[in-house]
Amino acid sequence: MKTSLGILICLCVLASASGAADRDPKVLIDAEHAFAKATAERGLDGWMEFMAPNAVELGTEPLVGADQIRAAMTKQFKLPGFKITWAPTKAEFLGTGDFGYAIGRYEVRFTGDDGKPVVRKGTYLTTWQQQKDGKWKVVSDIGSPDSTGD
Amino acid sequence: MKTSLGILICLCVLASASGAADRDPKVLIDAEHAFAKATAERGLDGWMEFMAPNAVELGTEPLVGADQIRAAMTKQFKLPGFKITWAPTKAEFLGTGDFGYAIGRYEVRFTGDDGKPVVRKGTYLTTWQQQKDGKWKVVSDIGSPDSTGD
Repeated sequence: MKTSLGILICLCVLASASGAADRDPKVLIDAEHAFAKATAERGLDGWMEFMAPNAVELGTEPLVGADQIRAAMTKQFKLPGFKITWAPTKAEFLGTGDFGYAIGRYEVRFTGDDGKPVVRKGTYLTTWQQQKDGKWKVVSDIGSPDSTGD
Repeated sequence: MKTSLGILICLCVLASASGAADRDPKVLIDAEHAFAKATAERGLDGWMEFMAPNAVELGTEPLVGADQIRAAMTKQFKLPGFKITWAPTKAEFLGTGDFGYAIGRYEVRFTGDDGKPVVRKGTYLTTWQQQKDGKWKVVSDIGSPDSTGD
């Protein structure tokens, strides 16, 4: 019995290490919340902490890699009254379990040139990949604004 | 009654034009199948037809824009016996309805340097955006191989 139990434990550890596709998506939801919390508390530094070295901010002019993202986001975070908040609504693991995505709602606020508050809301999709050190980082991020009329 | 019906039709058309988030995801599934068919029939040209100008192939070294993607994929398509096939398993619209994602399974085959067939399978996530001309194009594509052991 002891041996059987040992084998069983080994199999469980192997299954965990290989990352089953039915891994609990709460891991990704938690990563999203930690990412949002770090950004709320520490601004750009918090944001950058969760960017993978090969991360891409998708958009009309995609930003590739941590350096480009930091440069562009530095300008964003310097806008008067700038605040970005978000919360995931769902997440799912894909494939072998070191990769997944989260979808949620975001809100960006800042003070416009005319001194009036600007609020932009939308839906986002973020892909996450577990790094070699075990940490979860953002590989891609895309936002779809609710209105593109402005 | 006639007026009411007229108003109703107008509202429906407006709802359709603004792209409700509950738009039928079959649009994206169809786009995926058309993309796969074009690639099967016309190789690289078929692949490129579905890439948005700002498309990104995500990965360790992301490829940004149609030119970079074409250059890298030219090498892929030139591999002996190269064949890439895929099929979506699900798709969903996000936000205002001009943006969504599809998830599916892919298979890449080619002949290795040792003359033996190589088969790579995995899960992919593609984001799609409707272009100004109404066509659906790929904005980002990421693949998660089933095994990273080789």
